[in-house]
Amino acid sequence: MAKVQPRTLSGFMELLPAQQIQFDRMAAIIRESFSLYGFFPLDTPLIEASDVLLAKGGGETEKQIYRFTKGDSDLSLRFDLTVPLAKYVALHYADLAFPFRRFQIGKVYRGERAQRGRFREFYQADIDIIGDGRLDVSNDAEIPAIIYRTFTGLGLRRFQIRVNNRKVLNGFYAMHGLTQQSGSIMRTVDKLEKIGEKSVRDLLTGPDIGLSDQQAAEILRFIAIQGTNAQVLSALEQYRGRNPVFDEGLDELNLVARHLAGFGVPEENFAVDLTIARGLDYYTGTVYETTMLDHPEIGSICSGGRFDNLAEYYTDKQLPGVGISIGLTRLFFVLEDQGYLNNQLNTAPADALFIPMTGDLSAAISLATQLRDAGLRAQIYGEEKKFKQKMSYADKLGVPYVIFLGEEEIQEGAASVKDMRSGQQVKLSAGQALAHIQAGLAELNRGTPILDRGV
Amino acid sequence: MAKVQPRTLSGFMELLPAQQIQFDRMAAIIRESFSLYGFFPLDTPLIEASDVLLAKGGGETEKQIYRFTKGDSDLSLRFDLTVPLAKYVALHYADLAFPFRRFQIGKVYRGERAQRGRFREFYQADIDIIGDGRLDVSNDAEIPAIIYRTFTGLGLRRFQIRVNNRKVLNGFYAMHGLTQQSGSIMRTVDKLEKIGEKSVRDLLTGPDIGLSDQQAAEILRFIAIQGTNAQVLSALEQYRGRNPVFDEGLDELNLVARHLAGFGVPEENFAVDLTIARGLDYYTGTVYETTMLDHPEIGSICSGGRFDNLAEYYTDKQLPGVGISIGLTRLFFVLEDQGYLNNQLNTAPADALFIPMTGDLSAAISLATQLRDAGLRAQIYGEEKKFKQKMSYADKLGVPYVIFLGEEEIQEGAASVKDMRSGQQVKLSAGQALAHIQAGLAELNRGTPILDRGV
Repeated sequence: MAKVQPRTLSGFMELLPAQQIQFDRMAAIIRESFSLYGFFPLDTPLIEASDVLLAKGGGETEKQIYRFTKGDSDLSLRFDLTVPLAKYVALHYADLAFPFRRFQIGKVYRGERAQRGRFREFYQADIDIIGDGRLDVSNDAEIPAIIYRTFTGLGLRRFQIRVNNRKVLNGFYAMHGLTQQSGSIMRTVDKLEKIGEKSVRDLLTGPDIGLSDQQAAEILRFIAIQGTNAQVLSALEQYRGRNPVFDEGLDELNLVARHLAGFGVPEENFAVDLTIARGLDYYTGTVYETTMLDHPEIGSICSGGRFDNLAEYYTDKQLPGVGISIGLTRLFFVLEDQGYLNNQLNTAPADALFIPMTGDLSAAISLATQLRDAGLRAQIYGEEKKFKQKMSYADKLGVPYVIFLGEEEIQEGAASVKDMRSGQQVKLSAGQALAHIQAGLAELNRGTPILDRGV
Repeated sequence: MAKVQPRTLSGFMELLPAQQIQFDRMAAIIRESFSLYGFFPLDTPLIEASDVLLAKGGGETEKQIYRFTKGDSDLSLRFDLTVPLAKYVALHYADLAFPFRRFQIGKVYRGERAQRGRFREFYQADIDIIGDGRLDVSNDAEIPAIIYRTFTGLGLRRFQIRVNNRKVLNGFYAMHGLTQQSGSIMRTVDKLEKIGEKSVRDLLTGPDIGLSDQQAAEILRFIAIQGTNAQVLSALEQYRGRNPVFDEGLDELNLVARHLAGFGVPEENFAVDLTIARGLDYYTGTVYETTMLDHPEIGSICSGGRFDNLAEYYTDKQLPGVGISIGLTRLFFVLEDQGYLNNQLNTAPADALFIPMTGDLSAAISLATQLRDAGLRAQIYGEEKKFKQKMSYADKLGVPYVIFLGEEEIQEGAASVKDMRSGQQVKLSAGQALAHIQAGLAELNRGTPILDRGV
């Protein structure tokens, strides 16, 4: 028979089994962490009608969309989880209680140019809190707590949640009569880390934006405000009273910073940072970025912010919200690439592999059933192979325990349990075997999926 | 602004929040159950190159495929999880240990005519065990155990796993010189429940198949063999010695039935049933169907079988396997439709909703952080609303507990905890509140997602 070359499309992550277990462990921790804050899980279709998905239209993303027809229908694959959320909230408005909190972990599609570390199919892990008419700023204050719990749960330690407020920026620009240009100023200032102060100054005073040298200096002085959160907030107080939008933004920033300790977020993992603006005009208040302190080149691993109106393309209802997104597929790729994954954790599909030494598998089946009833993942190797091949299978899977059942063990109602890491083998009763393995697993599974040793 | 009508495509399931929690609970139980048997989780792309996905070509499914081009690429959405598995195993052969056991729970796409209970995007939950060259029949014996544990874990009780063996059927047909016609005979016999014995007889003796009356009678007598598993297997012994394929199939059926008790499957949930053939030519040995005893009209809710060669379109390696598939989206739809879902279980996004009675949320934030650290899902209602509106929000979410924090509670370091089902409210310390809620939740979450009361 003529064969087709099996292959996976470029830009589509397909993991080997042990990697997949690592990925799933991370996804499970993120899901659990999100769930602790009262978010509904949501699962929307991957395909939407093109006119619905592209209601906003234009923009960079539209070129990247996977769009096609099926019968008479013009269809598109979702390119983020925010537009489907907007559709969902507008469509099911009457059935939802507001604030509506949802998280979604799902695949999205963007036909970007394929290159190393860039994916066309990738998981996003999003949370959003949507208000009906208005949404209290205390919700903004909770977001850093969720980011902190999630990343520390994964095992990351050296990261920083950087927070700013667009109203502080907009208010500041208004003070200086720069409201008109504030959008392009913020997009330029956002590049500060990438291109440096001089290039930013040149762009600000260049023909496109056209600021005076003094205006550019004011802006650069403003975004150069640094120090502890208390120092930055105190420096911002100097500007108070000159613009109501600024004052509102400063109040919000103060509130977000004030509740950090109560939410359990240490100072060292949080910074009020006036250089953060997020490139999107979508955000109107608090904005968030999260960087790995030892890998700033990776950029933000969790970003988001406050927006005024989630679903204006679908409904007249005013639906403000605040949310964040983790690019999970890229994060996993980067963590693996940089050696952050904890390879000490169990990546085998089973906790115990039975290797029966008799033709009749009855004893193995009974004991495996008992162990499974107790929650242990047990697998029976039932193939007729040489002993060496059976052990090589156990090694290849990386199972922590092998259970041998020979004539002797069966007669004695016992099982020989081999700890594959230590090599130690003991003959135990069924109950003892269970306890022995459970104790070992508790030890083995104690770590986090990420090992962050710092530099 | 002109609005786009928000809508979800027909044939695409999109659940309301409480339903989604029910669905996710079912999916989690299936995942856990599969995991107990040593299966790797797998996650393959939803999009594959069309030539890879359609290597087998032809068939009913091809017309239903979502196929499109992006740039120069001819792409298709997966229509099942088996073809991607075949590709995966062929592509990553050198990196896998065999038998390779994997489960996958994922969405697949078929552009069927939309009708009630039919989905174009739906979850399948599959397990497969793939051997390299050969695969021991003990793997076939384990499959009913997995089905049994999975469905009882969900809460189903009145279901039956029906098992047959294609070799028994093929061998029987060979005995009667009907090998040539065996495919069409089996497809016809498979319809017995749907169309009745007379129609089957007419089809068998009709022009397309052309059996003699005596041959048709032999076949109908054979598939009419009924009774306990022991009775059916014993009746089959009468045919032994007349055809080697039959004898092999009978040995396999005997082995599968023999290990049931060891695997913990009660007789009443299992039947050797000679009418089961599965419509697909793909299966070559053991075949499985699972029916709900009170709803036979739903058809099989979990089917599968043994096949000789998983990936012949991609590789010369002989890769036999055995597997099953649950059509999860349809199953959920049917269970909800038939009133099987257990609405007593918690479908709120949070276990406890904080309703602060003071402007300052500090106390609520601290206590919520404590409860979350202990694994409780806690949400703070921070909106400025009237008390009645706050309670109405709690009611709408269906949270089991509301925690009130007023000046009095804060001064005393206490919290007023209201059990929303009983209406009972008690003032407790932080530690007491945690214990009180945890005890209530243990009670509340004790049931299964399905309530099978029988008829």
